[in-house]
Formats: sequence, structure tokens, C-alpha cells
Amino acid sequence: MEDLVFRHSIPVQLRFNDVDGLGHVNNSVYFNFYDLGKTGYFDAVHGHQVSQEEIDIVIAHAEVDFIEPVFLKDEILVQTTVTAIGNKSLTMVQRIICAKTKRVKCLCKTIMVGFDFRTNTSKAISQIWRDAISKYEGREY
Amino acid sequence: MEDLVFRHSIPVQLRFNDVDGLGHVNNSVYFNFYDLGKTGYFDAVHGHQVSQEEIDIVIAHAEVDFIEPVFLKDEILVQTTVTAIGNKSLTMVQRIICAKTKRVKCLCKTIMVGFDFRTNTSKAISQIWRDAISKYEGREY
Amino acid sequence: MEDLVFRHSIPVQLRFNDVDGLGHVNNSVYFNFYDLGKTGYFDAVHGHQVSQEEIDIVIAHAEVDFIEPVFLKDEILVQTTVTAIGNKSLTMVQRIICAKTKRVKCLCKTIMVGFDFRTNTSKAISQIWRDAISKYEGREY
Amino acid sequence: MEDLVFRHSIPVQLRFNDVDGLGHVNNSVYFNFYDLGKTGYFDAVHGHQVSQEEIDIVIAHAEVDFIEPVFLKDEILVQTTVTAIGNKSLTMVQRIICAKTKRVKCLCKTIMVGFDFRTNTSKAISQIWRDAISKYEGREY
Repeated sequence: MEDLVFRHSIPVQLRFNDVDGLGHVNNSVYFNFYDLGKTGYFDAVHGHQVSQEEIDIVIAHAEVDFIEPVFLKDEILVQTTVTAIGNKSLTMVQRIICAKTKRVKCLCKTIMVGFDFRTNTSKAISQIWRDAISKYEGREY
Repeated sequence: MEDLVFRHSIPVQLRFNDVDGLGHVNNSVYFNFYDLGKTGYFDAVHGHQVSQEEIDIVIAHAEVDFIEPVFLKDEILVQTTVTAIGNKSLTMVQRIICAKTKRVKCLCKTIMVGFDFRTNTSKAISQIWRDAISKYEGREY
Repeated sequence: MEDLVFRHSIPVQLRFNDVDGLGHVNNSVYFNFYDLGKTGYFDAVHGHQVSQEEIDIVIAHAEVDFIEPVFLKDEILVQTTVTAIGNKSLTMVQRIICAKTKRVKCLCKTIMVGFDFRTNTSKAISQIWRDAISKYEGREY
Repeated sequence: MEDLVFRHSIPVQLRFNDVDGLGHVNNSVYFNFYDLGKTGYFDAVHGHQVSQEEIDIVIAHAEVDFIEPVFLKDEILVQTTVTAIGNKSLTMVQRIICAKTKRVKCLCKTIMVGFDFRTNTSKAISQIWRDAISKYEGREY
């Protein structure tokens, strides 16, 4: 994943109790950061604040590499891109990096699937998402 | 508050990242415990699992004394009672104690007010709550 | 508290799961915001990133008024000041306001006491803190 | 993973703000549950409350399948087992199931690696852990 381009990158504001008894940011808290990246990414690709009603994808699977610890005074960024869009799912790659050194702290691949919240069944990735992401990333999927 | 009687008392399951970088349970997490006590208390006084729709009170004010730190392996209880019911508000007192030593770790007084979620305005404490709490606590308010 | 001046004010980055099942920011999460304000304030008054070892005060008491709900897309600030410094304690006032409307969402008064972490006993507020806060706030305590 | 045996299974106490604005338990919170399972498992295999100093493994990688949502009033269990122990790493499998229906809500595979916290370098899985897990699980690794 060395040569991935992340067009979307936002700083994360660390909170005092993100740190656990081991003295570094708790593993589970990274997923809050990835959520932060996801909502920011969705807003960015759609060009407006996306409401809950517009979201018709859910997280089905995630794979995370914990590479280096993050400490309370670190300045970190969460970066997000979509690497593939299939018929019923898309693949999102995110990472947490140190803003200064650019070292990668954590890497996450997420599979999101189209989901109809009214019928509670899976569905295809909608064309509006496909177009918005293609335009934002500047490539075809 | 020495002679308060707490009829409602439940154990709290501590989580690894309840503890912050100082090595003890983070102050903000106590409020999760008090929420746990509140929902358990509401279920107990009503005699069934209370749904969101049945809740027509909100927290307006809280006063907390942080007395002793709580550590990850401590066994703690959250205890809840209602000390007063007025026309538009009720006063709830809660505390976190060590299950073994009974030492009080934290004490919290909360003012809850009647609230109509449809009109977003305050309202009287409903009779159903007043009756349920009176019956559970075995006293008139 | 209408005429308090808050020299220290920082934006809060809201996270997706700050919001609970009621659709607004959970009460307990406000305390994370106040922690954010506290650590930012400590760094600001001391003029450098304060390490854990430099902190010799702990929270003894907090009083909170929950005035208006905060929603996920709100832009909020946490503002912090110290209103009094006694021999063994200081009084901190903080509030959460809407960045746009300046409406106050939540108000918190905290009593912090001097604490010696080696002996686990209370102690006087140290002169270094008194001086730093006085200089920052531009007033004598 | 259908035929895995989970000797270690503990109930999870859900908290009000585990639920996010979508009305079900937030994805990131599952990792708190898996932490709960891990610390419980460590205590169980060692036969005593494991202190921080005894822990010489860290999480390097996690893979999670989010299968069904969890709601606030659900009764859930987190179940934990170790499926393999190599020279420098072990593979842990955990799942969250409904206590009543036994339906699997979420499945997690974690790779943990031996780690020396003094030198901050990886190391072999220590024999004491290998023996303790083998004895607990009743099999050789």
C-alpha cells in the first residue's frame, strides 16, 4: 500500500482519556479516528454535510495493522481513500500518520456494503456514491 | 448524606480503557456509571425495561464529589435513589462505592426535569413516574 | 456568571459516537470536552506543553448545568478560566458554546485541589501555578 | 470458524452511550468488549489477576467481521480462545454473541506479538504464556 494517494487528510484532536493505562492511545480509540475520517470523507466527496438519511452503506469488515503507538501530545492525521468499488461493496483504506514525521501509526482497510435501512437488506452501491467518489478521487472505479 | 438508603445497587463492569494515563478511572467515565445506574433504576421502579419513548425527563444539573480514585481491578457498585420530587423536577442521588470495603468513591446529585420531546419544552414530572418511584422507594414524595 | 471573561477558548472536534441513542451529544462526553479545555488551559498558562509530572492538582468537585443539547454537526468551543485561587484549592469555570451563535450549551464549575501524588495527600496550590494563572489572566488572585 | 470451541465466555454490561446516533452499538465500542474478553481470558488462563507488568504481548493486527447490529437491551457475551501460538506471535479469535439466541454478532481475529516493554522490541511468546494457554485450552500449540 506504499504508493496509495490520500487526497483526504484531517487532523485528529486527541482527548485526555484516549490514552489508557498503558500510557498510549487505546487501540479501540483508533476506530473513533477512522469514523472521523469517514464522515469527513463522505462530506468531502458529496460536497456538503451528509445527513444520516443519505448514508446507505455500512461497515461489514475491517482489517487493522497497529504499527506504532500514539501518545497524547502527538499531532496525528487520519487519511482516507477508496481503492475499489464493486457492485455491492467498496473498499476504503485509511491510515493514521504523525503530522510531523509522516510515519504511519496505524493502517485500516474497511469493506463497506450497500445497505437499505428500511428493509434491512444489502443492496448495490448507489450510483450517486460511485459518481461522487470517482469525481473526488479523479479516477474511474 | 450519611443516612441515605439506597435500595438500588448494581455492580459496574470496568473496561480496560476506563482508565486514563494517570492510572485510574477517568473522571468523565463516572458519568457512564451514573447513566448505568439511572437506566437500571428506571427499569427497576417501572418493573420493566423502559423504552426511550417512556422517558420524559432530562438531566438539567449535576454536582459531583470525587472522593477517592477507582482502579481497574476494583469491584465497584453504582447506587441510586431519588431524594425529592417537586412539580417540575426530581432530585436523584447516586454514589459509587467499593463492593468490598463499602468506601464511597464518588457522590453525585442530579436534578432531572420533566421534558416534552415533541415540543422541546419543560413540563411537570408525570404522575406515572411519581407513583412508580414512591412505590419502589416505599415513601411519599 | 454572565460577565466572566474567557481568555482561553478552543474548538472541539466532535466524533461520531459522541452522540448517543437520543441523537445528541451524551452528557458524559461533555467532561471529555472540559478535560480538553483543562489541558489546553494548563499548556497556555505555563507557556509550554505541561507534562504529567508538573500537574499537582486534582478535581475534587464539579457542578454542571446542561442548558441546551449539542448535535453532531454543531461547531462548538470549550472556554476556560480560573475565577478564584485559595490556599489549597482553585475554582475553574468552563463552558461549551456554539461557535456561531455564541449560545451557551453547558456550564461547569470545578474545584481543583493541590495534591501530592507521591504521598497521596492534599497540599497547597503551588506558587508556580498561582503565578502562571495570574499572569495569563492578567489579574491577582 | 464454525467449529471453534470457546471455553472462555463472559457477559458484557452495555452502557447507554455505547449506542451511537444510528441507534445501535457503535462499531468502535466492540473493541472495548474484545479488550474485556482479553483481560478476562488472561486472568483465567493464568489463574490470577494479571498485572500490567506480566503482560508482554501487544496487538499487532486485527480482522473484524461486523455481522449483525447490537442494541442497548441485548444481552451479549464476549467469547475468547487462542487458535495458534507461533514463535513470536499468537492468534486469538473472539466473538460477540447474543446470550439468548447464540447468534454471532461480530467476529474478531487478533494477532498478538511478544513485546519487551523495556527495550521496545518484539520478542518470542514467553513459555509461561504458552504453558498457561495450553493448560487452559486443554491442547498443545
